[in-house]
Amino acid sequence: MSRGYFSDIPKIEFKGPESSDPFSYQYYDKDRVVLGKTMEEHLRFAVCYWHSFCWDGFDIFGAGTFERPWQAGELDQEAAEHKLDEAFDFISKLGVPFFCFHDVDVMAAAATPQEHVKNLSVMVDKIEDKMGETGIKLLWGTANLFSHPRYMAGGATNPDPEVAAYAAMQVRNALEATHRLKGENYVLWGGREGYDCALNTAIGHELDQLGRFLNMVVEHKHKIGFKGTVLIEPKPHEPTKHQYDVDVATVYGFLKRYGLEDEVKVNVEANHATLAGHSFEHEIQLANDLGVFGSVDLNRGDPQNGWDTDQFPNDLREITLAVYYILQGGGFETGGFNFDAKVRRQSVDAEDLCHGHVGAIDLTARALLNAAAMIEDGALERFVEDRYAGWKSGVGAKMLSGDLDLAGLADYAVDNNIAPVRKSGRQEYLENYVTRFTK
Amino acid sequence: MSRGYFSDIPKIEFKGPESSDPFSYQYYDKDRVVLGKTMEEHLRFAVCYWHSFCWDGFDIFGAGTFERPWQAGELDQEAAEHKLDEAFDFISKLGVPFFCFHDVDVMAAAATPQEHVKNLSVMVDKIEDKMGETGIKLLWGTANLFSHPRYMAGGATNPDPEVAAYAAMQVRNALEATHRLKGENYVLWGGREGYDCALNTAIGHELDQLGRFLNMVVEHKHKIGFKGTVLIEPKPHEPTKHQYDVDVATVYGFLKRYGLEDEVKVNVEANHATLAGHSFEHEIQLANDLGVFGSVDLNRGDPQNGWDTDQFPNDLREITLAVYYILQGGGFETGGFNFDAKVRRQSVDAEDLCHGHVGAIDLTARALLNAAAMIEDGALERFVEDRYAGWKSGVGAKMLSGDLDLAGLADYAVDNNIAPVRKSGRQEYLENYVTRFTK
Amino acid sequence: MSRGYFSDIPKIEFKGPESSDPFSYQYYDKDRVVLGKTMEEHLRFAVCYWHSFCWDGFDIFGAGTFERPWQAGELDQEAAEHKLDEAFDFISKLGVPFFCFHDVDVMAAAATPQEHVKNLSVMVDKIEDKMGETGIKLLWGTANLFSHPRYMAGGATNPDPEVAAYAAMQVRNALEATHRLKGENYVLWGGREGYDCALNTAIGHELDQLGRFLNMVVEHKHKIGFKGTVLIEPKPHEPTKHQYDVDVATVYGFLKRYGLEDEVKVNVEANHATLAGHSFEHEIQLANDLGVFGSVDLNRGDPQNGWDTDQFPNDLREITLAVYYILQGGGFETGGFNFDAKVRRQSVDAEDLCHGHVGAIDLTARALLNAAAMIEDGALERFVEDRYAGWKSGVGAKMLSGDLDLAGLADYAVDNNIAPVRKSGRQEYLENYVTRFTK
Amino acid sequence: MSRGYFSDIPKIEFKGPESSDPFSYQYYDKDRVVLGKTMEEHLRFAVCYWHSFCWDGFDIFGAGTFERPWQAGELDQEAAEHKLDEAFDFISKLGVPFFCFHDVDVMAAAATPQEHVKNLSVMVDKIEDKMGETGIKLLWGTANLFSHPRYMAGGATNPDPEVAAYAAMQVRNALEATHRLKGENYVLWGGREGYDCALNTAIGHELDQLGRFLNMVVEHKHKIGFKGTVLIEPKPHEPTKHQYDVDVATVYGFLKRYGLEDEVKVNVEANHATLAGHSFEHEIQLANDLGVFGSVDLNRGDPQNGWDTDQFPNDLREITLAVYYILQGGGFETGGFNFDAKVRRQSVDAEDLCHGHVGAIDLTARALLNAAAMIEDGALERFVEDRYAGWKSGVGAKMLSGDLDLAGLADYAVDNNIAPVRKSGRQEYLENYVTRFTK
Repeated sequence: MSRGYFSDIPKIEFKGPESSDPFSYQYYDKDRVVLGKTMEEHLRFAVCYWHSFCWDGFDIFGAGTFERPWQAGELDQEAAEHKLDEAFDFISKLGVPFFCFHDVDVMAAAATPQEHVKNLSVMVDKIEDKMGETGIKLLWGTANLFSHPRYMAGGATNPDPEVAAYAAMQVRNALEATHRLKGENYVLWGGREGYDCALNTAIGHELDQLGRFLNMVVEHKHKIGFKGTVLIEPKPHEPTKHQYDVDVATVYGFLKRYGLEDEVKVNVEANHATLAGHSFEHEIQLANDLGVFGSVDLNRGDPQNGWDTDQFPNDLREITLAVYYILQGGGFETGGFNFDAKVRRQSVDAEDLCHGHVGAIDLTARALLNAAAMIEDGALERFVEDRYAGWKSGVGAKMLSGDLDLAGLADYAVDNNIAPVRKSGRQEYLENYVTRFTK
Repeated sequence: MSRGYFSDIPKIEFKGPESSDPFSYQYYDKDRVVLGKTMEEHLRFAVCYWHSFCWDGFDIFGAGTFERPWQAGELDQEAAEHKLDEAFDFISKLGVPFFCFHDVDVMAAAATPQEHVKNLSVMVDKIEDKMGETGIKLLWGTANLFSHPRYMAGGATNPDPEVAAYAAMQVRNALEATHRLKGENYVLWGGREGYDCALNTAIGHELDQLGRFLNMVVEHKHKIGFKGTVLIEPKPHEPTKHQYDVDVATVYGFLKRYGLEDEVKVNVEANHATLAGHSFEHEIQLANDLGVFGSVDLNRGDPQNGWDTDQFPNDLREITLAVYYILQGGGFETGGFNFDAKVRRQSVDAEDLCHGHVGAIDLTARALLNAAAMIEDGALERFVEDRYAGWKSGVGAKMLSGDLDLAGLADYAVDNNIAPVRKSGRQEYLENYVTRFTK
Repeated sequence: MSRGYFSDIPKIEFKGPESSDPFSYQYYDKDRVVLGKTMEEHLRFAVCYWHSFCWDGFDIFGAGTFERPWQAGELDQEAAEHKLDEAFDFISKLGVPFFCFHDVDVMAAAATPQEHVKNLSVMVDKIEDKMGETGIKLLWGTANLFSHPRYMAGGATNPDPEVAAYAAMQVRNALEATHRLKGENYVLWGGREGYDCALNTAIGHELDQLGRFLNMVVEHKHKIGFKGTVLIEPKPHEPTKHQYDVDVATVYGFLKRYGLEDEVKVNVEANHATLAGHSFEHEIQLANDLGVFGSVDLNRGDPQNGWDTDQFPNDLREITLAVYYILQGGGFETGGFNFDAKVRRQSVDAEDLCHGHVGAIDLTARALLNAAAMIEDGALERFVEDRYAGWKSGVGAKMLSGDLDLAGLADYAVDNNIAPVRKSGRQEYLENYVTRFTK
Repeated sequence: MSRGYFSDIPKIEFKGPESSDPFSYQYYDKDRVVLGKTMEEHLRFAVCYWHSFCWDGFDIFGAGTFERPWQAGELDQEAAEHKLDEAFDFISKLGVPFFCFHDVDVMAAAATPQEHVKNLSVMVDKIEDKMGETGIKLLWGTANLFSHPRYMAGGATNPDPEVAAYAAMQVRNALEATHRLKGENYVLWGGREGYDCALNTAIGHELDQLGRFLNMVVEHKHKIGFKGTVLIEPKPHEPTKHQYDVDVATVYGFLKRYGLEDEVKVNVEANHATLAGHSFEHEIQLANDLGVFGSVDLNRGDPQNGWDTDQFPNDLREITLAVYYILQGGGFETGGFNFDAKVRRQSVDAEDLCHGHVGAIDLTARALLNAAAMIEDGALERFVEDRYAGWKSGVGAKMLSGDLDLAGLADYAVDNNIAPVRKSGRQEYLENYVTRFTK
């Protein structure tokens, strides 16, 4: 049932590249088969609940601008249900297969743990019904451990164990809700798991808290039989000065430290990557190579602004490379492309929310076609393979296998008085190659 | 024997806080005992060879400005010896106990591996003599695997194993030279161990190369009986777009991945920390808490410029906190404060090199006095201890010990319908506290 | 009349450098004479209304944490009066001479222009009374043209002239209120005078709107006989992607373009300076040299975070240099040091607000002592004067006076076959000099 | 005459979008007419001498890698002529109409002013011959006032007027050479016109030096009858900590201050724009709107690195918008697209230089087609026009014309108790529109 906020938005259909209808897909033809799978199966798009249906357009310098009807008063049960109806109406019109949510996004506000449990539970029933009606599935669930004042100094990493207990309650219930709703992943984003001030912080103690907490989550997942993937979402800072899960490499080290590298993967966000000083594709490549790639929060930052802008992506080259490396790594298993993106504060109309999603979906579909063409062509992959071919035999292979030690390798250099040959990295050639496939 | 370049520079003596003589120490009184050790023992200052004696003042937009006499022609044996004489004359005048060097800093230029071995060997003898004459010791040695064109695509991570063999030769010989000169550490800074272009790079393959190479270094260290510490120096980028040893957390993960976390520690550089988006003290605290703190390259970046400026430190608050956390972690063992800092390109005179070092030495000595006062006062440490006191008993302790699982902790929250109490983090109070001790 | 929120905060008194009482000044002795004026006269401290009394601790990721009693419900007349009582109680306890405010900070929320006029007017009376009772004066007033949704696309630069009319109403009334309250300046900060998206923006048109609007303000100031200074506060971005008043140099060009360079000065904010890629002291020096220095919003950013953190300053060296250059420029005339700073979101207690201010006041007083000592010593000023002495005669003087043209100056070089002498810039020496005076 | 370095590079021909020959243009068909002009006339491409033929691949951490034959020994007359032959051979093969140079790029190294005059003069004759032979024209000339140690503290802004005299000699001769070679512009880039250290710098004095110097250049231009445009190229920092010509807005204010706004325009560089915290298209739009747009240095920075990387552009969307706004402003008059870009240090082969240029030329041609399509479609322009339509009549028009003053506009708001209507900025819609045209 729709309440009508999106009633002017038509069902978005594929109309092909020549269409100039902004309420259509030019590239996203969900049943089109690319490299043996449909676009829908490859891209596994999800709409996020928080930015699209909860945020009212406020920022740190000003009040909300959107005036969505369900945001008018308190976040009570009626408002939660109104929001649910509109959300599923909108997602249905987009025709994407998944959504994602935090516990507090979907439920009436709760003042105590007992209320929280009850209010969430009521809504999980209703969400389950909606999912049944619409066929929309859950990509992942999560718990919001950062918005309530109690979490001002962190959830699992709070100096006060009472807060960690509150967090445990939320995570337990959100994980179980995700399990019941057949979610394919469960995400932990460390919103305030970090510090504002190093002076008052026992970093090592907080890391131990976080490591133990994450182990508890993994143990509980197994206990309840949840088969989905547990994911950590890296971010370097904001809202905190320093967030512990800085980037893929940092999360990897953390997982190794607490024995979780085979249990937990990463949810890479484009804007978080760039805030951490990495390109989006770097984080994907690295996650692949460290064996922890899980899912993606798709968005973009503003290259001239130093905070998380969570804009809808519009850089075709960047997304083409992202999809290329995801495909190179085998594509998504339980993960997908969640749009952790919000329309700008001046984009106050229902149709703006539609433009944001349609543009991003279409861009990603176009990127998939580009990436698939690059994979079919194969030249980029071959270039890299050839570049490292020397390591397959000779001293290179012996060094990697352990057959040569430092002295042995050094002696080889001295005995043969070697003079390695300069060889171009062909960066401009390769960049032109990618440009040619970016269309 | 001096060649006279520094002949106008007097021996720098401690003259006390009231002195306005720029060629004296106001605070660095090397025999003064602070917290049970002399200043010299605490601070373990080292002068670096490369910035102070090799760099001629060039930058990417212009030629060298310094015109040091030994830089006039080719870097032949005579130039290398001239440089050595001047370097030890300068370090002696400063009265600091250590120096640091790269292989190519001290030797005549070599065109082949065999020449390299020979040219380095000749100079190691001469350095040994100098050390004997002056009493100056070696804090650490290292090999330069980034300046020669052969290393344009990396040393150990080069796509060409011949280059890795060349690197192995340099590292073997530099490590053995360090051992012979009784160096207390051996450093690896991954100058070009990273990539300029992700398109032509097999990141995972290069990480495996690097992991194996580092294991080879550690094995060789044990084989030759070197008791010093092997150190990795993190840096996020520059000269490469992306350097693998991004920061302390990344290096930690790398060490865990390749089984080296008990063998290798980090050499934290202030300017590298800030380029990676961290405060200097963050990197020290984190290295302490991860058990990998080793040594420090002391300098500073320019907060408005986005590259490695390697300036001499002048922020007393920053260095006070750095020394505080180093002392909190037990102080240096084999490490020390190496000035990886260079005078500005316009600072063309011999005396400028002196001003740079004297200012930095004095600032750090002053920071030591501040940090010691904070430690003796104890209020900061007590504040942090109190803040986490809740974790020593109750559900906090049970969570950490594993006696409570997620459901148990969540049930505690629900059953007691808990309402955690808001508690101030007192950031401004603590910052004022540090200000009070910064004098 | 106090309502008691700050009742546990004592009146802050000067107790001298040896005091460790956090509720005392160690350095700020308001009647102490330094360089011929009292500290109070030099520093002209102001407490800002918005961060200290209006902000409830919310950020973009979470709700308010402070729970100040007057923030509990709607911002009605009663809340406005409660806030006023508490604000003046707090400022009185600090013993600083000034405050600053936006129109909407002090008044009950208004839904229409007519309500706005009325609600502001009522409070201006009450503020006037408070000022009379306490002796606290107004450093500057301003109008908030960014928080209400109507301003989402700017105030004076809005594509809709109706919004500019609304802005004109607010500015007229805020300027007149400032005049009546004997404010010494009127500030315009271009909160959303900029753009989020260049695609939908006519930059030149918006600049013309802003230029005309500012001229209208200046004309009105003269019409009503306001003798205070009109100030623009530069900021490069946030909340907008691009704010027109980027930095001092940009504002200067804007004033020149619209014929206002003799009418309007700048209010330099430390954190805005660094966000624009400049040091705080650069902006002060440049404003001095361009003849537009007016006032200061004192705070600091976080060097590792890319947004406006508005923290209380704690870098003694930075503030010492800032005060030094302000004194070099003749000191404040109508301007002063307004603390545009907020305590951290975890600093939830009344006493935290006190710690923030006391620390910043004391730091600035200490900086004044340092700066005065540097001015009395005179070595820094003499160094600079000597460095440029060559321009007072010879070809330098002739070039500046216009007596030599390009060919004449070039001929001088060729005819004399000149070889300019390399001369050290002595950066490290000068930095050490500043360090010596930073105590 | 070619010396053969580029002998394996074929003449680059247009082969159409389906071509996969990396030594062909897919889009740049120089005689193709777009919006009434040929591609060649629109784009006015220039190859720069310095990055392409002078730089040997060195960076701050390592020696040159390119081993171009003319770079082997000293930069004597023979090397200069060799370089000239190769440069014109390469530019001819690309088939672009222009080149750009600094005085020292083309000539034998000179130790004195008299040698400088002579060595430059000899080469200007030879360049003139080459231009006659090949038909290649000069887009602009300039003087290098930053590489020689004498310029370490600036050229025109040096504390020593002797250095300014040397600079005057170079600029006079470079300007006259540009005039003789029928260059269409003369550029001044303030390489070291700024400061490394504010402590030793009289900013206002240096600005006055620079203002007078620029006036001298303009006067000389008129004296010798040079009809080309004088251009300043903004950059915020690097090599200096702070460069005076920060960005377009700063240069505009500088020109106004020294009465030059009608005489001098700007040469916008993409990478300098982003280092200054602006988008490339922002700087173009602003230069258009301030009436100072002149020419473009086309390149890109690395969004994750904080220094000037001067890479060849490869972001089709960015360049599409840049070309769109250039066309909106009327297109180039005397300016053009100069590739101030260098291949990466690992791109050591002759063909890499070709790949860099071909990719950039083709990308820009493709961007022209996209931009032209957007202009022909007209929807973006109409959107902006409609958005500001309210200012053409009513209170908006009266405010702009001066018919309404602040009180009048404020009264309008109050009397009508206005309630401006929220109107979407349609950012996502417009971004999707641009995406659709980016192909």
